[in-house]
Amino acid sequence: MSAEFFTLENVDEAGARAGSLTTEHGVIETPVFMPVGTYGAVKSLSSNELRNTRTQIVLGNAYHLYLRPGLETISKAGGLQKFMSWDGPILTDSGGFQVFSLPKLTKIDDEGVTFQDHIDGSTHRFTPSKVIDVERSIGADIIMNFDECAPYPSTHEYASEAEIRTANWAARCKERFDATEPLYGYKQFLFGIVQGSTYKDLREKSTEAIRALDFDGYAIGGLAVGETPDMMYDICGFNASLLPENKPRYMMGVGKPEDIVECVARGIDMFDCVIPTRNARKGTVYTSEGKLNLNNAVYKTDSTPIEEGCSCESCQNYSRSYLRHLFKMGETLAGRAATIHNLHYYMNLMTGMRTAIKENKFDDFRKEFYQSRKSEANATITEEVVE
Amino acid sequence: MSAEFFTLENVDEAGARAGSLTTEHGVIETPVFMPVGTYGAVKSLSSNELRNTRTQIVLGNAYHLYLRPGLETISKAGGLQKFMSWDGPILTDSGGFQVFSLPKLTKIDDEGVTFQDHIDGSTHRFTPSKVIDVERSIGADIIMNFDECAPYPSTHEYASEAEIRTANWAARCKERFDATEPLYGYKQFLFGIVQGSTYKDLREKSTEAIRALDFDGYAIGGLAVGETPDMMYDICGFNASLLPENKPRYMMGVGKPEDIVECVARGIDMFDCVIPTRNARKGTVYTSEGKLNLNNAVYKTDSTPIEEGCSCESCQNYSRSYLRHLFKMGETLAGRAATIHNLHYYMNLMTGMRTAIKENKFDDFRKEFYQSRKSEANATITEEVVE
Repeated sequence: MSAEFFTLENVDEAGARAGSLTTEHGVIETPVFMPVGTYGAVKSLSSNELRNTRTQIVLGNAYHLYLRPGLETISKAGGLQKFMSWDGPILTDSGGFQVFSLPKLTKIDDEGVTFQDHIDGSTHRFTPSKVIDVERSIGADIIMNFDECAPYPSTHEYASEAEIRTANWAARCKERFDATEPLYGYKQFLFGIVQGSTYKDLREKSTEAIRALDFDGYAIGGLAVGETPDMMYDICGFNASLLPENKPRYMMGVGKPEDIVECVARGIDMFDCVIPTRNARKGTVYTSEGKLNLNNAVYKTDSTPIEEGCSCESCQNYSRSYLRHLFKMGETLAGRAATIHNLHYYMNLMTGMRTAIKENKFDDFRKEFYQSRKSEANATITEEVVE
Repeated sequence: MSAEFFTLENVDEAGARAGSLTTEHGVIETPVFMPVGTYGAVKSLSSNELRNTRTQIVLGNAYHLYLRPGLETISKAGGLQKFMSWDGPILTDSGGFQVFSLPKLTKIDDEGVTFQDHIDGSTHRFTPSKVIDVERSIGADIIMNFDECAPYPSTHEYASEAEIRTANWAARCKERFDATEPLYGYKQFLFGIVQGSTYKDLREKSTEAIRALDFDGYAIGGLAVGETPDMMYDICGFNASLLPENKPRYMMGVGKPEDIVECVARGIDMFDCVIPTRNARKGTVYTSEGKLNLNNAVYKTDSTPIEEGCSCESCQNYSRSYLRHLFKMGETLAGRAATIHNLHYYMNLMTGMRTAIKENKFDDFRKEFYQSRKSEANATITEEVVE
């Protein structure tokens, strides 16, 4: 079953991987970036627009969806795909990260976590088997284990406790997953999550424990939570080297374009992050030369698109001048147009890397990526400078 | 020139009119509803989406566009059409209504109005010839006279003064219009505006003065500002009967679906209003049976679209349940999907009336319109009732 799910197509001389994931909602070519659709919508986009950006798979947040609209609404719709009118693959995180970061945590014990809804204060409890049930009800193609994500920095002692709990919960998740069936007639795949903070001995221990349970894929959790990029790249590369070659590898919560390039270089296949969409809504857009902030006064009468030659709907229709005006006026079309462009940029980045990997030219791609980025100075200007 | 601009195709037995307006950006079939794009965007929609709702002509607000992004930005883009990536016809109001309602008015005299920007407090002055210059710079196909819109209620004395000033300004607008040329290579048409509040003698006097200047079309201003529907319909019918048959008639700021039906019955050809778009963003949507408020708890697990059988993009893709969830979460896709549906509903209403008028069956249409509206009770429920 797993062999059919993931196909490793090439490992570049540099170590970067190209492959594919086969789900009943479609084939996903890797390396892949997954836009975040917390509440069943990638903020500001319709499902048709998402498709037009060449998004292959959307990430939904189990914690948020469990609370709103709740499982009854999603179940009655026939699962998240039908609810949000998206016929492609979906992955849900387990809520592990959110439960430890968003709400007022009332109690954590070896069996699970009791927490308060970050909006209405109501009390809820997540256990490993409960979370699997939640993810069965939501119905994503790929679902994640319930884990404990230690904050950065954590002491070795605390990180070790979280690693042990994560391993115990992983076994319970796997057991529950094997004892239950999908609810909507298509297969779901379960990924294990490796923790261990920035401690290599804990990463080794965690990887061994999670690997022993034979998941459909493996995620590296607990990074991109405040450590330096160099530390993230180092732990990422170290942890990736411990994972089996024949299973997909998912770097959770990453990241900036350069982070993705560096983690692909270290053998990662899957990514998710709010950066391209959240930045877009604030006016920051990505181009091959770096970032631009569309609020900048220099774009007041600039009739060129965000990036010359870009084929996205926004660059085909709108000038920097118009988008800057819409941002100033608080028109939601501004954030939407920027989101479309940024996801288009990210998808181009991923397909560019994939092509390079298949041609064993990833190192050339990586060099060109950095060479084309002349300056990101504009991105730091958020105030008007001269009118 | 004017004869080519407006073609009256049929006057139904009931008095309703079907015609067409020919501009260099396209032919507009009447009766027509013009969505409002205050700042060069119909709030929440892209220009492609606007086209898909079958919008024929967009209204821009000269007052708002003059202040933001300003004439320099619009001129450098080559006019409002190019700036907003909309290749269809545009109409701009003159700012008359806004100047008297939005800003802190510093001075009104017989030559013009001095006012403060309602956002940054800067001081500006609009005179009739200045407004024509502004509308030349914006570059709409149809532009409006600078008028004084008296509030409701107004004394006969005040309404009379405003009517006289409106007539004097109309002559100056026409003079400036005739002495200047369009800036972007396509023809612009100038409409006169009739005032006179709810006083029939003033409406007669105003109509006579404005008609004498021979405009390309005539607007009825100063209604839909707080008077009762019956009073509006009465003054509308009275004023329309005073206007020439061979010129288009525009009822400014109207309105609700039933207001439009009633004013079409009284011989009006053109309408604009924020109601369908503003209501949509708050969750109120129109169906043949009346209004629905999508925030209502009864839609929590309702998997039907806003209106069964509706061909709009929103009804083709999204359920009431999903849209209700998006409204609760503050996702902008909610307001957008509702806006698309409401404009689709309005455009259907207009084409339905046009077809009926051409077949001399407008009275039947009007009867069916009211019969199908079973209940609007849902629309009044804005709070959760039962979860």
